[in-house]
Amino acid sequence: MHGALPPPRTPLDPAFLERLRERFGRDLHQSASMLHQHGANEAHFDVVLPDAVVFARSTEDVVDLVKLCVAAGVPIVPFGAGTSIEGNAVPVRGGVSVNLGEMNQIVAVSPEDFDCTVQAGCRREQLNEHLRDTGLFFPIDPGANATIGGMASTRASGTNAVRYGTMREAVLSLKVVTPDGKVITTARRARKSAAGYDLTRLYVGSEGTLGIITEVTLRLHPIPETISAAVCGFETLEGAVTTVVQSIQSGVPLARVEILDDMQIRAVNAWSKLALPEVTTLFFEFHGSPGSVAEQVEIVGMLAAENGGGEFAWSNLPEERAKLWKARHEAYYAAVALRPGAVGWATDVCVPISRLPECITETKRDLAAASLPATILGHVGDGNFHVIFAMDPDSAEEQAEVQAINARLVARALAMDGTCTGEHGIGLGKQDWLVEELGDAVDVMRVLKRALDPRDLFNPGKIFAL
Amino acid sequence: MHGALPPPRTPLDPAFLERLRERFGRDLHQSASMLHQHGANEAHFDVVLPDAVVFARSTEDVVDLVKLCVAAGVPIVPFGAGTSIEGNAVPVRGGVSVNLGEMNQIVAVSPEDFDCTVQAGCRREQLNEHLRDTGLFFPIDPGANATIGGMASTRASGTNAVRYGTMREAVLSLKVVTPDGKVITTARRARKSAAGYDLTRLYVGSEGTLGIITEVTLRLHPIPETISAAVCGFETLEGAVTTVVQSIQSGVPLARVEILDDMQIRAVNAWSKLALPEVTTLFFEFHGSPGSVAEQVEIVGMLAAENGGGEFAWSNLPEERAKLWKARHEAYYAAVALRPGAVGWATDVCVPISRLPECITETKRDLAAASLPATILGHVGDGNFHVIFAMDPDSAEEQAEVQAINARLVARALAMDGTCTGEHGIGLGKQDWLVEELGDAVDVMRVLKRALDPRDLFNPGKIFAL
Repeated sequence: MHGALPPPRTPLDPAFLERLRERFGRDLHQSASMLHQHGANEAHFDVVLPDAVVFARSTEDVVDLVKLCVAAGVPIVPFGAGTSIEGNAVPVRGGVSVNLGEMNQIVAVSPEDFDCTVQAGCRREQLNEHLRDTGLFFPIDPGANATIGGMASTRASGTNAVRYGTMREAVLSLKVVTPDGKVITTARRARKSAAGYDLTRLYVGSEGTLGIITEVTLRLHPIPETISAAVCGFETLEGAVTTVVQSIQSGVPLARVEILDDMQIRAVNAWSKLALPEVTTLFFEFHGSPGSVAEQVEIVGMLAAENGGGEFAWSNLPEERAKLWKARHEAYYAAVALRPGAVGWATDVCVPISRLPECITETKRDLAAASLPATILGHVGDGNFHVIFAMDPDSAEEQAEVQAINARLVARALAMDGTCTGEHGIGLGKQDWLVEELGDAVDVMRVLKRALDPRDLFNPGKIFAL
Repeated sequence: MHGALPPPRTPLDPAFLERLRERFGRDLHQSASMLHQHGANEAHFDVVLPDAVVFARSTEDVVDLVKLCVAAGVPIVPFGAGTSIEGNAVPVRGGVSVNLGEMNQIVAVSPEDFDCTVQAGCRREQLNEHLRDTGLFFPIDPGANATIGGMASTRASGTNAVRYGTMREAVLSLKVVTPDGKVITTARRARKSAAGYDLTRLYVGSEGTLGIITEVTLRLHPIPETISAAVCGFETLEGAVTTVVQSIQSGVPLARVEILDDMQIRAVNAWSKLALPEVTTLFFEFHGSPGSVAEQVEIVGMLAAENGGGEFAWSNLPEERAKLWKARHEAYYAAVALRPGAVGWATDVCVPISRLPECITETKRDLAAASLPATILGHVGDGNFHVIFAMDPDSAEEQAEVQAINARLVARALAMDGTCTGEHGIGLGKQDWLVEELGDAVDVMRVLKRALDPRDLFNPGKIFAL
């Protein structure tokens, strides 16, 4: 299920380690706790330790590390905040984990151009904190306080994507250390360009397999004059999804629209001390001028009423809104907490929005028959949703059951012309499905990988078996 | 200036031609007029004839043609509507031009999913005609009635890009015939995906050098409830640009905002029988609900007034609006017509919007000192503008002068962290500049090209010298 098994490991050559120590001194780590931190993951994948960890403090550090690793034939795996959930940063073939978390400088902000450049280890919350006085913000919000480099590497998106796009749209340019140790800049700072192959988009979502991103130039957006948030419960799941489809069709520029099933609402109520009716619920956010927001709200309210929605419960004060979205962001932990002692097992798919009601309904039927608790929540405006299982970590039967349900979920999404992952990436967990999804196109990816990383040293074992 | 010179041509092997004739029958052409049509271009590049033209009627036709050409080592160059302006489709090394214009079917429209799939030869106007009853439209509008495949291949954009993005954002998925004759689909129809390398974006903008696009799945948008258009003259160019920057900063979702300099307005007045004041002018279009459009108009009107703008002249009736945008679309022909007997020579650059006033002002100074007429017009919301020269086709001096001005223009844009082409592509005309712009990143492009097309048979000689 989880891609090719790692080949037998050989210990690092002491001479190589000595060169690392000479070059990186106290930024080279081999303590058990440090190795464990970089070999673990927030999901259910086995811990695989790197042989060493190096903290990079500059692009030059990364260049030198790349050259040393490539010369010695040692794998090199970039590590940001460790919040990915398909095992994307697990060093399955050992080698060096390069931690970019200290490269967290905000290099430049150009408010007039609506862009900024940050080092790869900058976290998204840190960036928005920094931007506050400029009147601009960086909208991509995957929930976790991930690094911008990690978000670029996994093509992250999240709750705002229906309005502001994903990392695919947000990244203007990247600074990348290539496998041959060169530093390239993939694009200039112009908002658009027709100059050659789109290397920016090639590296966005490549999960560290083609080189190491050290800087990211991002598009920013003006903080809306008015932000209004609401929740609305629905009689049926179809009614909730239809409301969203019709809203988009009416041209309403929804900023956020999240679906939480009854089970997820139950979990959120318990975890975040809320008292929402335990039915399928939409969380909305509207951005715009006061007039535009009022208009959006009117249209969506009318459509919700026509589709079996209840009253809108409004959160117009920043504190109330923050509470609502905090509850949404903690939905993963809330779902896991449904069952004491459980670990989380999360998956995501994305389908054309017309197929979403059917996809979610069939999935819900599967979950209802399962022996363990599971919730559904998702970015309904994009056709993207998650299933979170609260799994007994010691039960092989439950693991097999979850894998079977996940396999049916992905097969269902693919049959609907959807994708096996809307925003988590392939990592270790979705490799077989990628081939099912894209067939011969995966061979083209392999050709690109072999051309750019002929010795397979950059995050080897991820996305596809070579 | 125009990339590598073609190597000496050898005539096609008669046995190869015989195989083409067997397979394609009356879709194989070698008449002088047909060869000339596929060897010419809308710009100033020398005509280079292909050895043969094949009209493809299906993806299977393209597969068979690719296999025949690759087996014989014959170049293959895709041809759509022939409206590109950097010589992108000129078969500089001969071989077979494959005309995709007959592959113009609209394969599927999914109104609920806001997407459609078309064959590569479908034209954008044909698509919008077809979509009219669905309430949706395809916004990308480069002016010319180009094919969707050609627009994808050159990463086209145009007047609506400030609101709706470019072909980079518009394309959901591609069907591509690869150099080894396989048919791949680069993505599923889900609106977003984190599944592996972004092959869709790799092929968008690759100008036929990595394979041949035969189908395109596109994102569509709801036709706005209200569309309102206006023109506004400004005392200064800076005032016009500042109005746009401040509008965007205020969160106004401008649908179109085009700048035309005084010379371009003079040309448009003469060509389209208008009577606009001959000053720097902005053409606006606002999309949204009636309330939202009214609000946008109020904000932009206020900002224009603060920045030396005159009264807004409104075109709210569809006929008036169509007349206004027809004038804008014909600006190229209008500029060329400034001088009887002239040919057009167009270039484009794109810079961070904060640098746009300076970039345009310096360029205007250059044009004022030139010995031939030239106009400026552009997509000011993106920082992208064009210069159009009305050049004497028989004057080597003028050609040299235009090239020198263009060289200064591109150098200026690059010095401002801009790009040598916002939307025309590299083709033949911008190859030296691509290297200047992206340095070692172009080597990465070469690695990709060699990996996917090792014999350099797909639109050879374009984008970069191998």
